[in-house]
Formats: sequence, C-alpha cells, structure tokens
Amino acid sequence: MAPASPRVVVKVNLKKRPWQQRQPLHNRWHPEIPSVAEVKAGELFRVEMVDWTGGAVKDDGSAGDIKSIDLSTVHYLSGPIKVVDEDGVAAKPGDLLAVEICNLGPLPGDEWGFTGSFDRENGGGFLTDHFPCATKAIWYFEGIYAYSPQIPGVRFPGLTHPGIIGTAPSKELLRIWNERERQLEESGVESLTLCEVVHQLPLANLPTSKGCLLGNIEEGTPEWERVSKEAARTIPGRENGGNCDIKNLSRGSKIYLPVFVEGANLSTGDMHFSQGDGEISFCGAIEMSGFLELKCEIIRNGMQEYLTPMGPTPLHVNPIFEIGPVEPRFSEWLVFEGISVDESGRQHYLDATVAYKRAVLNAIDYLFKFGYSKEQVYLLLSCCPCEGRISGIVDSPNAVATLAIPTTIFDQDIRPKTRKVPAGPRIVRKPDVMKSTYDGKLPITKNPSSSS
Amino acid sequence: MAPASPRVVVKVNLKKRPWQQRQPLHNRWHPEIPSVAEVKAGELFRVEMVDWTGGAVKDDGSAGDIKSIDLSTVHYLSGPIKVVDEDGVAAKPGDLLAVEICNLGPLPGDEWGFTGSFDRENGGGFLTDHFPCATKAIWYFEGIYAYSPQIPGVRFPGLTHPGIIGTAPSKELLRIWNERERQLEESGVESLTLCEVVHQLPLANLPTSKGCLLGNIEEGTPEWERVSKEAARTIPGRENGGNCDIKNLSRGSKIYLPVFVEGANLSTGDMHFSQGDGEISFCGAIEMSGFLELKCEIIRNGMQEYLTPMGPTPLHVNPIFEIGPVEPRFSEWLVFEGISVDESGRQHYLDATVAYKRAVLNAIDYLFKFGYSKEQVYLLLSCCPCEGRISGIVDSPNAVATLAIPTTIFDQDIRPKTRKVPAGPRIVRKPDVMKSTYDGKLPITKNPSSSS
Amino acid sequence: MAPASPRVVVKVNLKKRPWQQRQPLHNRWHPEIPSVAEVKAGELFRVEMVDWTGGAVKDDGSAGDIKSIDLSTVHYLSGPIKVVDEDGVAAKPGDLLAVEICNLGPLPGDEWGFTGSFDRENGGGFLTDHFPCATKAIWYFEGIYAYSPQIPGVRFPGLTHPGIIGTAPSKELLRIWNERERQLEESGVESLTLCEVVHQLPLANLPTSKGCLLGNIEEGTPEWERVSKEAARTIPGRENGGNCDIKNLSRGSKIYLPVFVEGANLSTGDMHFSQGDGEISFCGAIEMSGFLELKCEIIRNGMQEYLTPMGPTPLHVNPIFEIGPVEPRFSEWLVFEGISVDESGRQHYLDATVAYKRAVLNAIDYLFKFGYSKEQVYLLLSCCPCEGRISGIVDSPNAVATLAIPTTIFDQDIRPKTRKVPAGPRIVRKPDVMKSTYDGKLPITKNPSSSS
Amino acid sequence: MAPASPRVVVKVNLKKRPWQQRQPLHNRWHPEIPSVAEVKAGELFRVEMVDWTGGAVKDDGSAGDIKSIDLSTVHYLSGPIKVVDEDGVAAKPGDLLAVEICNLGPLPGDEWGFTGSFDRENGGGFLTDHFPCATKAIWYFEGIYAYSPQIPGVRFPGLTHPGIIGTAPSKELLRIWNERERQLEESGVESLTLCEVVHQLPLANLPTSKGCLLGNIEEGTPEWERVSKEAARTIPGRENGGNCDIKNLSRGSKIYLPVFVEGANLSTGDMHFSQGDGEISFCGAIEMSGFLELKCEIIRNGMQEYLTPMGPTPLHVNPIFEIGPVEPRFSEWLVFEGISVDESGRQHYLDATVAYKRAVLNAIDYLFKFGYSKEQVYLLLSCCPCEGRISGIVDSPNAVATLAIPTTIFDQDIRPKTRKVPAGPRIVRKPDVMKSTYDGKLPITKNPSSSS
Repeated sequence: MAPASPRVVVKVNLKKRPWQQRQPLHNRWHPEIPSVAEVKAGELFRVEMVDWTGGAVKDDGSAGDIKSIDLSTVHYLSGPIKVVDEDGVAAKPGDLLAVEICNLGPLPGDEWGFTGSFDRENGGGFLTDHFPCATKAIWYFEGIYAYSPQIPGVRFPGLTHPGIIGTAPSKELLRIWNERERQLEESGVESLTLCEVVHQLPLANLPTSKGCLLGNIEEGTPEWERVSKEAARTIPGRENGGNCDIKNLSRGSKIYLPVFVEGANLSTGDMHFSQGDGEISFCGAIEMSGFLELKCEIIRNGMQEYLTPMGPTPLHVNPIFEIGPVEPRFSEWLVFEGISVDESGRQHYLDATVAYKRAVLNAIDYLFKFGYSKEQVYLLLSCCPCEGRISGIVDSPNAVATLAIPTTIFDQDIRPKTRKVPAGPRIVRKPDVMKSTYDGKLPITKNPSSSS
Repeated sequence: MAPASPRVVVKVNLKKRPWQQRQPLHNRWHPEIPSVAEVKAGELFRVEMVDWTGGAVKDDGSAGDIKSIDLSTVHYLSGPIKVVDEDGVAAKPGDLLAVEICNLGPLPGDEWGFTGSFDRENGGGFLTDHFPCATKAIWYFEGIYAYSPQIPGVRFPGLTHPGIIGTAPSKELLRIWNERERQLEESGVESLTLCEVVHQLPLANLPTSKGCLLGNIEEGTPEWERVSKEAARTIPGRENGGNCDIKNLSRGSKIYLPVFVEGANLSTGDMHFSQGDGEISFCGAIEMSGFLELKCEIIRNGMQEYLTPMGPTPLHVNPIFEIGPVEPRFSEWLVFEGISVDESGRQHYLDATVAYKRAVLNAIDYLFKFGYSKEQVYLLLSCCPCEGRISGIVDSPNAVATLAIPTTIFDQDIRPKTRKVPAGPRIVRKPDVMKSTYDGKLPITKNPSSSS
Repeated sequence: MAPASPRVVVKVNLKKRPWQQRQPLHNRWHPEIPSVAEVKAGELFRVEMVDWTGGAVKDDGSAGDIKSIDLSTVHYLSGPIKVVDEDGVAAKPGDLLAVEICNLGPLPGDEWGFTGSFDRENGGGFLTDHFPCATKAIWYFEGIYAYSPQIPGVRFPGLTHPGIIGTAPSKELLRIWNERERQLEESGVESLTLCEVVHQLPLANLPTSKGCLLGNIEEGTPEWERVSKEAARTIPGRENGGNCDIKNLSRGSKIYLPVFVEGANLSTGDMHFSQGDGEISFCGAIEMSGFLELKCEIIRNGMQEYLTPMGPTPLHVNPIFEIGPVEPRFSEWLVFEGISVDESGRQHYLDATVAYKRAVLNAIDYLFKFGYSKEQVYLLLSCCPCEGRISGIVDSPNAVATLAIPTTIFDQDIRPKTRKVPAGPRIVRKPDVMKSTYDGKLPITKNPSSSS
Repeated sequence: MAPASPRVVVKVNLKKRPWQQRQPLHNRWHPEIPSVAEVKAGELFRVEMVDWTGGAVKDDGSAGDIKSIDLSTVHYLSGPIKVVDEDGVAAKPGDLLAVEICNLGPLPGDEWGFTGSFDRENGGGFLTDHFPCATKAIWYFEGIYAYSPQIPGVRFPGLTHPGIIGTAPSKELLRIWNERERQLEESGVESLTLCEVVHQLPLANLPTSKGCLLGNIEEGTPEWERVSKEAARTIPGRENGGNCDIKNLSRGSKIYLPVFVEGANLSTGDMHFSQGDGEISFCGAIEMSGFLELKCEIIRNGMQEYLTPMGPTPLHVNPIFEIGPVEPRFSEWLVFEGISVDESGRQHYLDATVAYKRAVLNAIDYLFKFGYSKEQVYLLLSCCPCEGRISGIVDSPNAVATLAIPTTIFDQDIRPKTRKVPAGPRIVRKPDVMKSTYDGKLPITKNPSSSS
C-alpha cells in the first residue's frame, strides 16, 4: 500500500507573525533550543517556512520596509527537528546527517517573492558603496518562471533552494564562533584591507538579545536571557552549514551535515525561488516563503569517516553536498571578468573578492547599455541563475573572477554584435525598481569613467 | 569552391628552443614588439604554440625540472598578429577585437602534457604553505581523454583552452600596470592580510631583463635593453585579457578583446588540455603545446560601444567572453564548501580567497581518504574540470566558496555512503606524483586535525 | 500587487468516480461537448485531472484490475475549456492556441502511480505477443523521484507531462477520423504486414456508446445517443494533438494547437509522472492523477500562418511544440539497436516499428542478465526516461532504431565490463511485478535463442 | 615516457582513387577479405578514410555527379583490421569487441563535405516521391562549425561520427543476410504496404560484382569472382553493426561489436561531420573523408555474456553502444509531430515510418515559410543535429513520431510568435541548393494543401 503523503512536521500560518506560530520559530543557533518535531531516518517529511524576514517585506509600492528593516530578527527558521534512526535512537555528535531534498517550492497561495538591496547604514550589500539606497523589486511566479514588474524584459526559470539548512551547534562550537567573530569585529577595521573595498557593515553580526526568537524558550525567562546573549546569529554560513546560499541545492540534492548535538536538531529556512552566485545585493535572492520535502539518513560516526577538520579543533569542519539532477538548462552564456584591481585602480594581491566585485561592476555597466537601470541589473544579478567563478587564483598579483549570465533570460539579444553596432539610444526599461533615499553621509564610490 | 584549410600564420618547431623559432616568440607584453603575421577579418587562421615553459619541463621521471624552473622566461607566446579588416585597414585603439575559437588541440605528434606544483621558494602556488615541495605528474592523451601514470584511477575528457589570449597594451596602459604592481610589491607585505593566508611569492612579477624574449626585437640591441625593462610580465591576467585562465574558453567560444594599439597585436599561448577553476597549483593545468584555429572580427569603436571603464582611466576595462557550445557533459557533482575562516581558526571578513582555500583543503583531505596521496589530489584539482564558485559574498563575516568535482572522473564511487561505511584501509594509489625535496626554511602550515 | 494564485478552473474530487464529478469529465472527442470553464488569454490557470482510468486501477496486491479493465471508458479528460482573448472574444477556427505548461505535478495527497501491461486480448501493448499476461507495478513518489516495490533497485527523477492535451475537433475533422479508422479496421488485417509483427488488438478504436462519458451532455438523452455514436475515442493522437504522449512536454513547454471550433475547447488528461519514448507497454507511463498550471495565447489566423496541411484537406495538420528548459540531466546512456528484421528472422522494408521492437527486445534481454525479470524491464522501459530514436531510415532494407537508457537510474553498473566478466549468477530482484494469468489462445512469440 | 602518438594503421591518399590506395579499400562485407592491418587491445591507433563515395562527389557547381552516381561502389571502407589481445591472441567468434572512439574529425587539408539527395531512379531517399531531383549542397568547416553557401543563414557545430563501423560477418551470417534480403526483393512489392508510402528503390541492395572492391583480393581472380557474388552490400546496418548511422557515436563513445570471424576484422568508413536522426535524404549527412582514433578491448565470450540473440540463430544479435560525454549543448528545440496517416489521408497501423515521414514533411513546410526552399530544408534536416523520436507506438492506430530541431542553428528566430504575426513575405534564402532535372516518369507525390 502507498505510504501517506509526506508528513508535515512543521506547519506555518502566513497570516500570523513569526512569534505567533503554533510551532514556534527561531532566529538563532543554540544547542539548547528545543526540537519542535521528530523524524525517522528514511521517512519523507515536509517542512514549511516563512520568508527570511517573517513577512516584514510587503508586496507594495515602496522600498521603505527594506530601508527600515530590523536585521536583528532574521532569519526566521523552522525547526529544530530531531532525527532518530529506524530503531528510534537519536543521531549523535560525530554522526553525519544526510539530508535529501526530494522536493521544494513556494507555499501554495503565496507564489511571489522579493529582491532588495539594503541601505548602506542598515545592512548594505556587496556593492553598497555604489548603491547606497534601499531598493526593492517584486517577483511573481508562473510555475517554474518568475517575472518582475520592476525589471521588465526578463523572465527565467527558478533554481529553487533553501538558503539555510543546518544542524544545531554544540556549546563548544558556539563558543568558537562567538570568539572568532568578536575578535574580527574588535580588530577588524584596522587590520583588514578588504574593508577598503567591501564596505558592508557591520563586520560581523554578534549575539544580541534584540529581536531574538528562541522557539520554545519563552521570552523573558532567565533561560531566554542567558541563551539570547550566547546564541549565534544566522547570517553567516559556518561549520553547521547554515546560511550557505548554494544556489544549486535544488531538487534531488543531498547535504551531508555534521551532527554536534543529540538528535542533530536540523533547522531550515530562507527559501529562495532563485539566486545568483554570491547573492550580491544581500537581500539578493528571490526571497519567499516555501516548503521542503526531505528525507534523512544517519551515517553513524560519519564525521570521522568522511570529514577532516581544518583548524584547531575537531569541530572545524564543513558540510559536503551532492547537486541534484534537475536544473534549468542554459546553453549560451555571456561572461564578464574581473581582476583584483579595485575601482580606484589600486592593485590587490590575489584577492578573489575584489576580482568578483569588478566582474559584477563590469556586468552591470554593460547591461545598463541595453536599457536597464543599474539598480535593475544589481538586483537581477543577485537573483537570476548567474554563475560566479574563481577562474584564476595563482597568477600574482591578479585573482581572476568571472560572472556568467545565461543570455536567454532577456527578451533581447544582449551579445555584442560584430556586423553592425546597434544605433541610437536603447529603450529604457520602465518602471524601475522601487528606491528609497539614502540619508547617510558615508562616501559613495563613483566610477569616473562610467556612463551615468 | 572550398576555401583553403586554415592558413597557418604562426608555426612552431618543437625540436627547436623558443628563441630559435623561425617566427620568434615573445614572453612579455609591450606595444613595440613587432607583429610576426597579419590576418584579415573573417579569415580562418591557425596559430601554433609551444607549451608555456617552452619545453623546459620533460616527460621524465623527476620533478627536478619543475623545482629549478626559471619563471622569468614564461609564458612563451605566439604572435603578435596584426588584424586588418576586409579592406586592409588595421584595427585601431578603441575597437573591440572579436576572436572566435573555431578549433584547438594539442600539436599532432606531441600528445602529452604535465601538471606540477612549484617549490615554495620558486613560484609556489595556492597551497604552497601546505605543499612546499615541487611535484610533477605527466598526462597522456587518448583523443579527448587524459590519464596520468602518476595519478592512477582517474581519466577525464579535457575542456581544452588557451590559458593566454590577449592584445598588446599601449604605452599608457603598460605604465599603469607597472606602477600599480610596483606599489603592491613595495608596500604589500605590511598592508595585506591575505599574505598571512596565501603564501605565494613574490607578490607581483615586475619587469626584468632576465629571461626576456621580445620577438623580432633582437637581444642586445639598445631597443631590447629599453623595452625589456618596461615590458610587462605575462603571469597575471589584466585589461588586455592575457593570462585569464578561464577554463571554459574552449571550441566555439568568442572573446571580445579591447584594442590598445594599431593592428590589435594579438598573442596567444599557454595551451591547457584541461584546467580546474583556479588552476590552484600554479603550474596547474595540463600544460601542453598546441594549436588554435581562430577567426577575428573588428568591432569599430567597440570599446566605447560595449565596455565601461572601471577605474581612473578609459583603459581600465576587461574583455567579455561567450562560452562555446561543446563542453564535456557531467551530471553528478560532489561539492565541497569553504568559509572565510583560515586553518588557524581565525575569522576573515568576506574573503573569497580564504574561503576557496578552505574548500580546496576540505576536498583534498576528503579524497585522501579514498586512497590518493594529498599531492595527487592537489594536482588533480588543479587540472580536472572542477568548478570553483563564489556562492555567498554578503553574509558577514563569512564568504562561502564551493568546489564542485564531477564524480565520473574516478574509477570508484567517491560519494559518502549512507548504508554501510566502507570498511578497512582503502587501497593506496601507486605510484605517486614525482616529488622533489623542499630545502627552504619557510614554515609549513600544518593541520593538527588532519589524518596524515 | 501580486496576482492571485493560479485560478482553479477544473477541480476533481478523487473520492468520487469520474461520472460523479461536479464539473463533469469526458472521455471522447466531439465538437458538441460543452465547455465547463472559460479562461482568458494571458491568465494563469490550474486544471486538475483524474488518472486516465478514473481510479479503476488500485494500489493493491493484484494485477486483476489491469486484466479486466474496460478500455471503452478511457481516457477521462478534464475540460473542455473555452479560451477567449483579452477582450473576451473567443478563439476561432483557424487560430492557433499557444498553451504554456508553467507547472504540473501529482495531486497533493495522491503521490503514487502505476505502470501495467494489458492482457493480450484486452488492450495488449507493443510486445504483447511476448508478454501476453496483464502485469502491474506501483510507483511511489518522493518529490522528484519515483520508486517501485515491484521493481527494486531502480529510482529515477520524473519527466512529468500530460499524455493528452488537445482541442475539440470540428464535425468535418471528426468525420475524417472516423472514416479513415473504420477503413483500417475493416480492411486492415488483410493488407497490413505490420500485423504480422505488432499484435496489438484491435487495429483501431472506433466510436462506441459503451463507456461513453460526454461531460455536460447527459447520458440517456437523444443528444447523448447521437453524439456517443460519433464521438472519437481518445486513444490515438491525431490532428488536434490529443494522446501524443510526448515525454518531454514538461515544465516550461509550449504547445501550439490548431483551433477547429469556437473557443478552442481545450481538454487535458492522462498525466504521467514519467514515460519512456514509445510508452511501450501501453499502460506504460507512470499513470497518475495530477494538475496542470497553464497559460494560453491566441495566435489569430495562426493555422494558415504557421501550419501547412499535409493531406487532402486543410484540416490535415499537426501541432507544434517547444520543449521546456527543466529536464533531468543524464550524462551516461547505454544504447540498444534494432534493425527491421523480425524475431523470425524475416526482412522488412525500412520499417521503423519493427526496428524499434527489436531494439526494445534486445534491451529487455540484456537487462534480464542483470537480475531483473523480463516483465520488470518491460514495464521499466515503458516508464523510465529512455529515448527511442529513428537513427537510420534510408538504408534499404533496414531501418535502424535505437533505445537509449540512462545508466544512473540503476543501483548497479549495467555497462559491459571489459576487464573482468562478472562471475556467478546475478542477484534476482524480488519481488517481481504483479502478474495475472493469460487465459487466451493467441500464439506467444518465443525467442528460441533467449535465455529464459 | 610518453607513448607514441596514435599509430596510423590505415592511411589514405586523397589524390588517388579508392582502388589505387596502397592499403586497398573494400566496399563489401565478406569473411574472406584479408585484413590490412593488426592492432593490439589497449593500443591507440588511427584509421584514415575516404568519403563514402571515394571522391565521386566534387565541390563544384553542379548536382550532376550526384545524379549519375554509381551506388554499386559505395561505401568505401578502411580495413579490415585484425584485433589481437595483449598476448597476441586474436579475437575469436563469440567475443565482443569494445571499440572506444577516442577522437575523430575531417582529414587535415580536406575540411569540407557534401549533402545531397539522389535522383528518384538512382538511389532515392526518404522523401524521394516529393523530391525526385538530385540535389547537392557543399559544406565548409570552421573548426567545430559547418556552413553551406547553398543553405545561407544556418551554421551549427558538428556531432561528428562514423556512419559505418562493423566487424566482418561469418559465412553463415552472410548467408542469412543474402537470403532474407533476396526474399524481400523478390516478394516485397506485393506484400509490403510501406511501398505505398516509402518509394525508395530498390527494396534491397543485393550482392553484385559491379563496382565491387575487395581489398587485397585482386579483381579478375577466381577468388574475386566468387567472393564478389556473395559479398554483402554495405548500405543497410545489420548484425555486425555496419551502416548504423547513429549520430551520437562521437568522441568518447564505445561500441560493443559481436565478433564473427577470427581477428574480428574491423572496418570503418562513411565519416559524417554531422547528421540528423534518420539521415533522411540518404546522401544525407555532411559526408566527408576523415580519421578515427580508436582503442579496442576484447571481451572474451562476450556475446554469450552480454548479448541475447533475437531470431532463429545465435547470430541474430545487435551491437550495444555507449554515448560519449562531449556533444554540442542545445537548450531550445522546436518539435514537429507526425502520426501514421499518409499524405493521401489514409490511416496506417502503428507505423512509425509513416509517422516520421509526416513529421519531417511538417517541418519542411514550416521552415519553408521562413524563407528557405523546401530542398534546402530537406538537406538541412538530413544533416543538422535534429532528433527523431518514436514518441508513441501503442495508441492504435496512430504511431506518433517527433522531429526536434535545435533553434539556435538558424540566424533568425523560427519559433511561432504569439504577440504579432510576422508580416509580409519572408526573405528568400539565396542561392539555393544545386539541383538536377528529374527525367523519369515515376509519379511525384503532391500535397494539394501545400503552399508551393
């Protein structure tokens, strides 16, 4: 007889706020956040998730919600989910948890998403020094396709995936995280040359009780007070997986996550209808609510069997992934290159971040010539299925990074023409993305050679 | 009537040394190196090239030639080739030169290549602090496939491409290059935190008369003395294309190169039978001699039409690329992740280079568990068609980089198994790569958690 | 503001029988079957469908339901749907209806399907002379994947598609169909040599009142009596599209259907989770209930603009299709060949049907050697994403057909080994498919050379 | 040390006629044709081949050579090549010969090919009743690409492959071939309904001394007289592989050929720069001279181990194939459908040949509307990488066949437009294919509904 449909182990109600859900959500990593559900190895189950902001960003006519967003509250995650084997014995520290993504998608009845870039003084993004204003575009889904009224002339199939999938850290791992990130924040500006090129702020996102949601640990209790001060923010990807934003983790992918606590305590969230490599505008994927259908296996002692720590402790590991067999098929790509020379012309040493920034800037200015505003392209390259590659990392002093864009997502041929140069002004794509003012005083990086 | 076969415009004789070729080679970028051939737009022509070392590395049983290599002599390039339009009018500064790669391959009768890693004090590589010894593996070609006696159990189809394709710089552009690279070399160690993680030396490769080959400018003449002191080294990719090492520039690709001098003066070299993204071991592709069959078009005034300078002058541009339609088809990939935390556990700020280094180290230690030596994997990941991605670049403080390896290149299933953990010691793959001693005193980065 | 989710224009209730649905289904093609819904061009809408047998085949332990199936009742279709343009003007005869499949899938809560082969005297199939018994296998879905307890060791991602999508025929077209098919049935056995090779019965499926369901035309009325005697059966694909069983018509595909009646009257059904080219066992796909999310455009006068009739009247046309961009990615295929020589050794003249039969028989006997029963392979090749090609059709007297099977759907390596021949008996895959007895007397084609 | 480049075991001189080659060619299958070369298992070797007509078709301005071609002389094959194992023991009947195609291509200096359709009374083709005249188009190669002055506006990458690869038949197998084909020719016209639809003549190609070339068996000797009367023609593919025309047998493919005689006696020829499924115009691929680089393995007793005879004797087998990993990548396909109703409107029973004929006719008339002549499209669909599928073979009475054409091979967008119908006459593509007169009296099939 047929097995039942996937069991829904976490259900969300989009009419309620994140902290009002029956199965409470959480927005921090901590070993003590209690699991809200339990699944067996081999069982197909379904998890529902709110979008990463928990509904703070609306399908309306303004980027104001993006500008004033409270990033202390993101990302709202579903779980933790305790995983046990066929005999009911929980996953144990040192095991590997193999999670297969059998299916995923937007939540029925909520088929839309948003892409934005944050204000330079509230979140920023990879190019925030060029684009300091908060911007927003809304995307509507037609099955596999997304289109945006704010970025006309573009439609593409999504490579849908969860931005965040991870296991709970142990106390020891949490301590390592908090320590190394605090050190960065304290000493970073002095020592880090990247801060002269990548202007996103803050340098790290340290624990804070502000905005903290801890699932079944009730706010205001002493336990909440303690845990909220220790619990790691969800913004960076770390040893437990977490916010790895790997755009190819779509249907059929498999993730091998290290287990640090009894039961593994799997959490998921930050569903993306589509994302480009790098998710450059930070709020950069097509952010949406959604569901995952998952199947777990426990590989006993798998951390020792398959992972090698890379760092001072056995906890310094990273997950492994297998990519699924169903991805949109593109055959033609236009590729932009960047080298590790910054906008001021200064030479950096084998710096892939600088090189990728230049590749992205090159692509934006190129597409601008075809009638899009630069903000439209910035958001588009954040969320369309473009590929960011480290092409060369040894040819001192230049790292070479490339950004490859599938040409069929446009309704015009964006390739250079050898026979005749297109004449006259290109048609401007209207309307534009929604845009707020930038009211701060941080300097804007200007490209003196740029065409606008 | 049929057009003739592609006209051979540059021919090399592999029995002669680079400086003995009838059409002299060159290993520097300079506007005054005279062109050795002329082609018309629309004409299909053929260029032959020696390997990047000009035959210095042999198919023998020792890595000694790698250890003692003289890097002042690389890369030996064929050209420059002057490009004129159908009416015989030369390409002009400000034009774009569209170069289509119609075909390419190894030189008939020379179907082999090599991959190596340099000694830490003579060239280095991305992981030279982990692998300070010079190593070498020889690859033999069976049509589309390559295999190496030194890396048994692996065979893969090549994604063959030129590592270097570029136009000659103008005097002004050359001045910009030399200035910014000299600044880096002079002030770099103090200011660059990457030097604590990426230990390749030197920081930049400045002009030097030593080893300099300037085509038809005869050595010893006053012109040679002057030019050899100004001419840019070929190691880094720059505004003119050059050593961009983009592994997907294979059959059917098109490269849009900016033109800086009359005639464009196109040069090519550094043929790779195959390369992984990043070319991590530096001598990292399957290096070979080879040929290109090219077709050029001139896009008049194309730099202004299609490129936007990104930097202080109109010369701060980068080429654009279209990827060809014929590439090996892989369906299954195993993906390793790295975050911007280094081997000592220190947190870096959105540093894609550090993240990629960790992803590569994770992959090496993983495959080591399947019976390969770490040096075998280091060379393999330099030259097999693996993909290096910048997956996340905004989630402070961690950049997330991924390395995806096609699983079918191995003669064993390298995926983690959920059902039963493979028991017993894996078979060690013998023989190993050729290896020299490291006689220097620079510190070796050890991973205390590593399995060997 | 976001558009609403796709409007559900046809809803089915799986707890009710086909003839009890609120929006009545139909299982015949006729111009007078009234439309049950109306959609506007450009609107995204959703259609739900029962499986092609309307629930007659159960997820139980027996093939009895397959054996005794009443094929006069298939296929149960949803619709007809009237299509109007943005101004409310209906599609007209002579227009083309462009239907984009934006999404599709199984109905939530009903994630299973079946594959069967019919009894030789009740339906048959492409190899019914070899496999005269009714058989059945049940498939369960895990997101994109299907697996069957009756065919162990196989799991594959579905290339889901509607087996049937078509417009209503005009009276004239209906008359053409009935006439040509009646002629075949009346004179066929005498004149058709294929009947000596392909033994499926009957030769054609003519109109019959038995089992007839006509949507809103109520059974027993004079109209019903008349229409049921004229209405075309749904089994063959014809000029209106219909049962074309093109396995690649999945997400993102577009179908250009000729319009023969006012409003187009689009009907859909026969959802397949997956199918192999040819759908060889007749009940051969993974048959399921399901949904489609569609978007229509009307191309006014498109039949004349884009289609050329091929036959005696302007109605002798066929639809055109565009394949969507999201399909499972397979890189390795094992290919079986057949030539137009039948099992008795007799030579046929450029007959692709005979050649394909031999290719399929070759594949079945090959996979039998790897531990599967022949019935398991027969059903598997009906429903897995294998490709059937006409490779050569001019080299008299042999047509050459090929069947390509993706190798990764198996949990063993099914390729021939050159180094060592696998020793000993292969493991037999248990359990087998469900199987009924064959109680008829028609001769069974035996292969004297076969291994079982 | 590096192995030598592939050893050239068969060399051809294009300045000499087929019967003047130093290593004599052959154009028949017979067990007694002596081998001209010997290779060892595991050895990489190179075979050169003339085009299938041995130079009879010229790159000139006329289709006269096609019209008057002597088909008794085709196909000129290189070989036979004797295969021995590592110990020098020859392959034996009952073994399987695994042949890997490591590389292939046109012969250097001869980078062109031709496509033609034969005169209806001298060779014909799949649509010879529609296109009775001999036609010809010349293709020039630019590396991976081909273009034809006679079919302007089209350029595509080749999926290059050998049309013929096969082993020598045994006497017994040869007897079976000759008997069954003679029976067809003698009784065919009366019994075969396909002859009412597919009008190619003759029905079979029986042995004839005329035009016969038997390698080292010298013409005029008694042996030649005997063998030339028995030796099988090379036109149809059969149990030994032979003219299977499988367009995907390109670089990296592997063919498992049954061995019928001592040494296997492998022959190859009929190189195709590119071919469409079906090779519909008979002289239908881009025919060229070329080379193969091959590697053989002997699977001892492999016929019993892997093949199952399908017919009255153990010799009734077919080869197995693995497709290589390097093929042109297309993402967008336009698909034409045909059902088994012929041009007169008559219904055929599950006849894939009739269905495919209709699909091809539909495609030709469709593309005719975009400015191509029908003869241009007929030749184009013979040689471009289009896919011919058997989509449905069980839905009595209609077989459904489909023809999928990659859209990017055209320099215009050939998809139907939903928004605005292209207005006015399309530009006619000039010049047209070369065309001879048809001087015979056989009836021409007219499509009364066709637009020209």
